[in-house]
Amino acid sequence: MRYFITVSYDGTNYAGWQSQPGKVTIQQEIEKVLKKITKETILIHGSGRTDAKVHALGQVFHFDTSLEMDDEAWVRALNSLLPLDIVAIHAQRVADEAHCRRDAIKKQYEYRMNMGEYNLFMRNFVFQLNKKLNVEKMIEASQYLVGTHDFSSFCANPKEEKENQVRTIYSIDFRLDKDLLTISFKGNGFMRYMIRMLVGGLIEVGKEKITPEHLKEVLDKQDKEACNYNSDPCGLYLVQVEYEG
Amino acid sequence: MRYFITVSYDGTNYAGWQSQPGKVTIQQEIEKVLKKITKETILIHGSGRTDAKVHALGQVFHFDTSLEMDDEAWVRALNSLLPLDIVAIHAQRVADEAHCRRDAIKKQYEYRMNMGEYNLFMRNFVFQLNKKLNVEKMIEASQYLVGTHDFSSFCANPKEEKENQVRTIYSIDFRLDKDLLTISFKGNGFMRYMIRMLVGGLIEVGKEKITPEHLKEVLDKQDKEACNYNSDPCGLYLVQVEYEG
Repeated sequence: MRYFITVSYDGTNYAGWQSQPGKVTIQQEIEKVLKKITKETILIHGSGRTDAKVHALGQVFHFDTSLEMDDEAWVRALNSLLPLDIVAIHAQRVADEAHCRRDAIKKQYEYRMNMGEYNLFMRNFVFQLNKKLNVEKMIEASQYLVGTHDFSSFCANPKEEKENQVRTIYSIDFRLDKDLLTISFKGNGFMRYMIRMLVGGLIEVGKEKITPEHLKEVLDKQDKEACNYNSDPCGLYLVQVEYEG
Repeated sequence: MRYFITVSYDGTNYAGWQSQPGKVTIQQEIEKVLKKITKETILIHGSGRTDAKVHALGQVFHFDTSLEMDDEAWVRALNSLLPLDIVAIHAQRVADEAHCRRDAIKKQYEYRMNMGEYNLFMRNFVFQLNKKLNVEKMIEASQYLVGTHDFSSFCANPKEEKENQVRTIYSIDFRLDKDLLTISFKGNGFMRYMIRMLVGGLIEVGKEKITPEHLKEVLDKQDKEACNYNSDPCGLYLVQVEYEG
């Protein structure tokens, strides 16, 4: 039996999603719990990795097991054993050939930053920029990024990405709530560090250190060396992974 | 020279305010930083203790030093050296006989609880009750607590408190923001665990396990044994300490 599980997590205390020897990762925590539930050795497959300190509102993974349970029973069983910073929110039995990474048609990420005074209670959940930005300019620059482009300039390591660096960003939306700026990205897929590099570039625009046109030039260069922008992982959230039907 | 400093802190990773051998406490962290700044051994005096995992928006402490600096320079110096979960927000040179505990005329605490679904991002900052309460009944019960009473029933250890257990609560206010319930207490002083025990009692009323009148009876008994209510420290915030003038 194959199941898709949706989880939410606070990435603060983890070295990211993917299993790494000697580190505490979200994948390993979940696999430990699934082993307790199923008495089987379970390998889970995420819809994608998230880096250390990055959060998720709706990460999806799949796994195979011979244990059959109701979808709701999986959620309850997982939450009774998972640590307090990882929560299962949905489970669904799927076809044997369903694949949570390959079948994903759309992903949404959000980046949250605080342009106001340092907020110690939000320090792990919102990037503490503590500086006002020119949001109009950022919106202008974001329009150069929307669409289908070769995003090689915003790719940590092209060798890690299969096939090519062409991706489609469907939309980039800005939401301002007092001093909290949230930038929401929807696309057909994002490469490692891609959003944090894009946000880093947009922040430079917002600081008026570069122009919106300059960010377009960086994109057009299709060269990782063209971009030295990045942003703190704690502001990044994997919001949702969407599937057909 | 004597200074009053106002600090805000996230109590999650501390064994409370007061220095304790072998534990990491907020007092010790601040004293370490003041030693670096002044090159003197500094003992600070808090307006009161906060327990492990309790937060502060505006705790006040005082200390004496031979180093003279502008009020704003103290804030900057402290924040350049304090850990990210403790922030100095105000400093003020005061008279040599000023005392941040004895001179306090009013204190405000807040208790925050989530009556909706478990929120993992707020797990250290809001008590995760995850249950709807009858807030009307709680407001009714709170009115028995306002005023000058012997609060022995809501005192962790009467021997720890000097003189007596009579305190005055000026007001108890309820604020509801979606599923987030905040109860705000203003009074001339609160004993150890007093607010957490009062909140624990109010929650029992909200769950309709006891009546508002029963909570009044517990208060009237003036006996610690009469009360076995408590509440999680992570929901408690020391909001403000007020002084004359």
